Amino acid sequence: MNLEEIIRKSLEEDLGSGDITTRYLDLEPSTAMAYMIAKDTGIIAGADIARQVFKTLDPELKVTLYRKDGDPVKPGDEIMRIEGRPASILQAQRTALNFLQRLSGIASKTNRMVKALAGSKTKLLDTRKTTPLLRSIEKYAVRVGGGYNHRHGLYDMIMLKENHIRAAGGISQAVARIKEHNTTYKIEVEITNHAELAEAVACKVDRVMLDNMSLKDIRLAVKTYKKQIEFEISGGVNEENILSYAKTGVQYISSGALTHSCKSLDISLLFKE
Amino acid sequence: MNLEEIIRKSLEEDLGSGDITTRYLDLEPSTAMAYMIAKDTGIIAGADIARQVFKTLDPELKVTLYRKDGDPVKPGDEIMRIEGRPASILQAQRTALNFLQRLSGIASKTNRMVKALAGSKTKLLDTRKTTPLLRSIEKYAVRVGGGYNHRHGLYDMIMLKENHIRAAGGISQAVARIKEHNTTYKIEVEITNHAELAEAVACKVDRVMLDNMSLKDIRLAVKTYKKQIEFEISGGVNEENILSYAKTGVQYISSGALTHSCKSLDISLLFKE
Amino acid sequence: MNLEEIIRKSLEEDLGSGDITTRYLDLEPSTAMAYMIAKDTGIIAGADIARQVFKTLDPELKVTLYRKDGDPVKPGDEIMRIEGRPASILQAQRTALNFLQRLSGIASKTNRMVKALAGSKTKLLDTRKTTPLLRSIEKYAVRVGGGYNHRHGLYDMIMLKENHIRAAGGISQAVARIKEHNTTYKIEVEITNHAELAEAVACKVDRVMLDNMSLKDIRLAVKTYKKQIEFEISGGVNEENILSYAKTGVQYISSGALTHSCKSLDISLLFKE
Amino acid sequence: MNLEEIIRKSLEEDLGSGDITTRYLDLEPSTAMAYMIAKDTGIIAGADIARQVFKTLDPELKVTLYRKDGDPVKPGDEIMRIEGRPASILQAQRTALNFLQRLSGIASKTNRMVKALAGSKTKLLDTRKTTPLLRSIEKYAVRVGGGYNHRHGLYDMIMLKENHIRAAGGISQAVARIKEHNTTYKIEVEITNHAELAEAVACKVDRVMLDNMSLKDIRLAVKTYKKQIEFEISGGVNEENILSYAKTGVQYISSGALTHSCKSLDISLLFKE
Amino acid sequence: MNLEEIIRKSLEEDLGSGDITTRYLDLEPSTAMAYMIAKDTGIIAGADIARQVFKTLDPELKVTLYRKDGDPVKPGDEIMRIEGRPASILQAQRTALNFLQRLSGIASKTNRMVKALAGSKTKLLDTRKTTPLLRSIEKYAVRVGGGYNHRHGLYDMIMLKENHIRAAGGISQAVARIKEHNTTYKIEVEITNHAELAEAVACKVDRVMLDNMSLKDIRLAVKTYKKQIEFEISGGVNEENILSYAKTGVQYISSGALTHSCKSLDISLLFKE
Amino acid sequence: MNLEEIIRKSLEEDLGSGDITTRYLDLEPSTAMAYMIAKDTGIIAGADIARQVFKTLDPELKVTLYRKDGDPVKPGDEIMRIEGRPASILQAQRTALNFLQRLSGIASKTNRMVKALAGSKTKLLDTRKTTPLLRSIEKYAVRVGGGYNHRHGLYDMIMLKENHIRAAGGISQAVARIKEHNTTYKIEVEITNHAELAEAVACKVDRVMLDNMSLKDIRLAVKTYKKQIEFEISGGVNEENILSYAKTGVQYISSGALTHSCKSLDISLLFKE
Repeated sequence: MNLEEIIRKSLEEDLGSGDITTRYLDLEPSTAMAYMIAKDTGIIAGADIARQVFKTLDPELKVTLYRKDGDPVKPGDEIMRIEGRPASILQAQRTALNFLQRLSGIASKTNRMVKALAGSKTKLLDTRKTTPLLRSIEKYAVRVGGGYNHRHGLYDMIMLKENHIRAAGGISQAVARIKEHNTTYKIEVEITNHAELAEAVACKVDRVMLDNMSLKDIRLAVKTYKKQIEFEISGGVNEENILSYAKTGVQYISSGALTHSCKSLDISLLFKE
Repeated sequence: MNLEEIIRKSLEEDLGSGDITTRYLDLEPSTAMAYMIAKDTGIIAGADIARQVFKTLDPELKVTLYRKDGDPVKPGDEIMRIEGRPASILQAQRTALNFLQRLSGIASKTNRMVKALAGSKTKLLDTRKTTPLLRSIEKYAVRVGGGYNHRHGLYDMIMLKENHIRAAGGISQAVARIKEHNTTYKIEVEITNHAELAEAVACKVDRVMLDNMSLKDIRLAVKTYKKQIEFEISGGVNEENILSYAKTGVQYISSGALTHSCKSLDISLLFKE
Repeated sequence: MNLEEIIRKSLEEDLGSGDITTRYLDLEPSTAMAYMIAKDTGIIAGADIARQVFKTLDPELKVTLYRKDGDPVKPGDEIMRIEGRPASILQAQRTALNFLQRLSGIASKTNRMVKALAGSKTKLLDTRKTTPLLRSIEKYAVRVGGGYNHRHGLYDMIMLKENHIRAAGGISQAVARIKEHNTTYKIEVEITNHAELAEAVACKVDRVMLDNMSLKDIRLAVKTYKKQIEFEISGGVNEENILSYAKTGVQYISSGALTHSCKSLDISLLFKE
Repeated sequence: MNLEEIIRKSLEEDLGSGDITTRYLDLEPSTAMAYMIAKDTGIIAGADIARQVFKTLDPELKVTLYRKDGDPVKPGDEIMRIEGRPASILQAQRTALNFLQRLSGIASKTNRMVKALAGSKTKLLDTRKTTPLLRSIEKYAVRVGGGYNHRHGLYDMIMLKENHIRAAGGISQAVARIKEHNTTYKIEVEITNHAELAEAVACKVDRVMLDNMSLKDIRLAVKTYKKQIEFEISGGVNEENILSYAKTGVQYISSGALTHSCKSLDISLLFKE
Repeated sequence: MNLEEIIRKSLEEDLGSGDITTRYLDLEPSTAMAYMIAKDTGIIAGADIARQVFKTLDPELKVTLYRKDGDPVKPGDEIMRIEGRPASILQAQRTALNFLQRLSGIASKTNRMVKALAGSKTKLLDTRKTTPLLRSIEKYAVRVGGGYNHRHGLYDMIMLKENHIRAAGGISQAVARIKEHNTTYKIEVEITNHAELAEAVACKVDRVMLDNMSLKDIRLAVKTYKKQIEFEISGGVNEENILSYAKTGVQYISSGALTHSCKSLDISLLFKE
Repeated sequence: MNLEEIIRKSLEEDLGSGDITTRYLDLEPSTAMAYMIAKDTGIIAGADIARQVFKTLDPELKVTLYRKDGDPVKPGDEIMRIEGRPASILQAQRTALNFLQRLSGIASKTNRMVKALAGSKTKLLDTRKTTPLLRSIEKYAVRVGGGYNHRHGLYDMIMLKENHIRAAGGISQAVARIKEHNTTYKIEVEITNHAELAEAVACKVDRVMLDNMSLKDIRLAVKTYKKQIEFEISGGVNEENILSYAKTGVQYISSGALTHSCKSLDISLLFKE
């Protein structure tokens, strides 16, 4: 689904057979002014998407952005102004906020973890643990927050997990089969111990992923093979401990919680006279 | 979007132009057995949806549910078994988990708040602060967790907010216009003080919503009008304070956090021999 | 389906692989002027939709409305003018008329019945006996004609029919189950005799529907319970007898014929020089 | 839109965010038996479509047809039996009836006019004055009733109307242009007087359409040119006068009212024990 | 699928989850000028479609056509200029070229065969052997090249092939059944020998199709029945032999190779300063 | 678009408002047997897709494959048998053949070029010069023929072309920007001379593409840098000269003609008794 379709269908989800409150109020046309106001501290993501929600519902609404994606906000900051028919603003408001709050929540959380990495060269990656149908915009929010995107799906990078390897009869066999057909994609292998790591390095894959390994084991792995292969670690990383993991020298740390367990940024819409 | 479409498009989002890992591994067909295992404590929601994800990707996968929606789980509990082609399981796994973890997260959080209400007659309601495109299944997860659904959208209940009221020239005028046309829907009015409450009661609407009022004010409101109108409160409610709010005697407490800021339930998929 | 999609697909239905008449005529571009003319007496509904049909086919067509929805027309009245490429007008004309004639037919019939109710407080309701895919615009035409909308579908009001009641073991049991879960919707119960009516009243539902009852029975029902419950009647009502039904004091009379057996209003499109 | 899509979207139109009555009744699963019963006299059309509606909603419903499309019914006749979950039957019933009643109404009206033609060789044609989005099944219902289909849209026959002719500079010029490009389609020309008729015949088109001509003029036209061209008449034809028109010797009479102003056939669904 | 949908989905096919090259280059906005240049000799078809591809991706791109559909080009000729954001041009370029090159290839091949027919009255027809989903625009390209369209699908002309005839028990029986129901479409019969031809002529169908007959047999067929029926031949026709076939006097020669085995016209896009 | 949707819409393209030939023939149901027969030499691709076309139109058709994708055929070979209702076979036949012939044409051409590479280690790649909407299945056909897939779209590999490089201010600058953001994709740079090649090698990109370079220049390039970078060449390659290009030692040769200018494999469907 492209963004236009996501927005259109989200509005349809809320409007269904019509907004009965404004239909039955049957007000005289007038012009109102409404403001999106931050009620918490964070990073804005999705301001353009929120604007597009308003414009999709009513192309005559005027939306002025005071903050653009990536900008920090604190409680009380005005993020955007919406001007036009009150009924249109009221009909689009919830959908616009649902996008803006979620994406800003993701960008804010990402940004806190990126700041925790300050001083290291390690990059924070997202995962495929995203909300169904919204992966594309959630991965965008991660970039807005200063994170980096891991693969977008099963189609743009090769990742050999334990079960692939077992089915192929081992890492060397699996990588050999892949290299026979692949001309386009990087290859990453999931590793659970040092023997597997040695085998993966010998196969000349692009990256290994150390899943839930101890700091000590990670340090040893990086020390031994850092010239030959890239390292990614995953599992159990949070704002508090991420720097210790980064200091092992791994290039990448990936975190599913960025997208699957994120608190929305508190934002509300107020009408002003 | 109906559920079938949501599932199909979520799979397409992950598969894109094809799973290149299994395409290039080109394994002999075989049969694998995989299990969804809870890694945290909570309530399952979305087990049937997860099953449908697997069956949509490959109708020949066999899925056996060990837990049904509404069942509690603790770490280590097996939720379902999936049997069939390993490539199919690997291709559907992330999408199935993304649904199951999110919905179980919502049901679990709802359930904790419902338990906190033990002994009161107050009902916990959801809101429209849901994930775009997933409202229908998220509201389902709230019901699974023991909560109740507020209106599904702008189309199935009339809700007069501050701005509607101002535009109509007051509560009485707004309600009068609505009653002139409405034959089908309940009417709820958002209230910010006692004068408005008195006016709403006089208009004979079905429910008032007290937004961010103090416990003291809520108690007074309920005491004064409990025979004439239903009360809903909203804002700043959490597992710790919800019982105090319930004890005011309000019929309904609504919480946006149930759906917009919910931690996924930790669940993983393991292959076994 | 939203209106835009309904219009687009209706045009595609008529155009298929292309209008071969104008394709092969291959005329020089020119500008024509065409008028929609009423050929019968009635109420216009769908003028904006007809305009949107023309604009969807060719955004450069200019459409000027002389009558808006709700206006009465008599034979010879000009409803709208369309100006632009003759081929575009000819390609959109049939689809535009098919919408305008049907909707105006519904508004006109509704309006005749509403006029027949003159002097009573009874409201005329539509039903779900609408044309598949066009319910939303047909219910709109009923409103244009002065009628009121009953529920839009199975999702916005609770209606207990005979079979629901039997399956639940009786009216009281059915209503009790509903009230246990429902926080949002009005409840209506279909009633066939006085015992059921008494039971429904005792359960404190919002409305009863008396299906095909005699005038005498209706009068008795209203007289007995009018302070406690709303009444709707349905079945066998027409322009001639509707006032007698209204005089029983029921609040609502619903009529499926408004939408399922309605004569289109006769309207034609003429080119003028 | 194909039939499957029409049915699916019609069900979605009625179900929206879910059937709240059966959701909240939360009945034990059981099996019910329901019958579609004719309450008027006519010809059935759409029985298979109605069956498909039930099966689309719930593939486990069993539908047994007692009447097939084209069969006559009288009040009290059983048309089909539906067996399965009561909730499923109640959810699909209105949509199934909306199709069956409308299509049977069209077939019945068509059939009455076809019977009125008894003894003549004239064929009754439909038009493009059909319900938007339902043309394909409405034209099917016309065939079921014994009528014939005129062109399905702008794409499968060439029809030169007054405005085409004027824009091309006359009948001869218009037909010449068409014949220069057309290799596939029959050509029909709309005629309003004898001079035009003579010109059309001279151009060797396939058919002329006499719009709102008097019986006398039609007779003269047919008499003069019946060996050289086919005749279609349109406008003002009904069950009473159709035979007089047919006796002029025209091959075709077309009627828009078959589809745009048709009374639904009265059919209801009853549950039986 | 209408053209707008074909274009939108073709762009989505190429863009998928986003153009990572320009995303990561993150260039300053600037304006570039690019030209479509012919690199071979042929006839342009699809220039408007290519323009629509660019405008769909980025409505702010300016596209100026130097050649319109039907114009001849030789190597080095500028076909159109595109002006605007370089990233937009680069993202739409491949899709625009894929349409323009294929359609121009079809128009060019058609035109060569039409030129080979010079001096004869025979018309060159296309077939249904087109690219799935692109039939409508491929048939358009045939017209641009000077060819004529045979039926667009199974829905706009009646064609009796060998198997239809066998199933009906012979040509006369098949045609009789068809004529009983058909009021709208021309009838063509596939013929393999002179006995069948005689039978088809006797049934008064509109056209016969001689499939893979020898020149000698075709000549005899045309000579015998040219006053009574139209002739189409098909099979084994190419630029070299088409004139010999035309000289038999057949009205139509159809060629599947126009669309199913066509070399794209070589066109490239160059940026200029 | 997924394969199921491509097939469904291709059938709709051909069927439109219905197959009028079989509708009006109105044959008694019977069972026929039809065979797909190769009429030329090549490699089959799309047999499963053709089967799916038949099954989509009529799930009761039985399709038995005698050749699977990748199998060679010669004139007269039976590819598959279809058994069932004759009307169903006739309605699906053209669409099934349009897929099978095109894909087999691509696989056959690919295979001839792959055979011409015999003895070298060079891999033959496809391009994005594919038929709009059919890229996925055309790239599949290339794999069936023994070729390899280059990137599927703009989303799965980074490719810096001349204009990207100019806009970024040079190869080094462009690659630096990309490497700052990219964590997932291989990087290829288009090169036109030796200075650029040296710069690209210095930047450590994954592959260079030499566009339309002379054999001599290619040889020198490979000789100089073969240990440091992968080489792809493109432009002007055909069955005759491909081996000379391969002998330069490049790893990849890409060819757009595989998909944009491919002759369909001649296959026909015959009914047998």
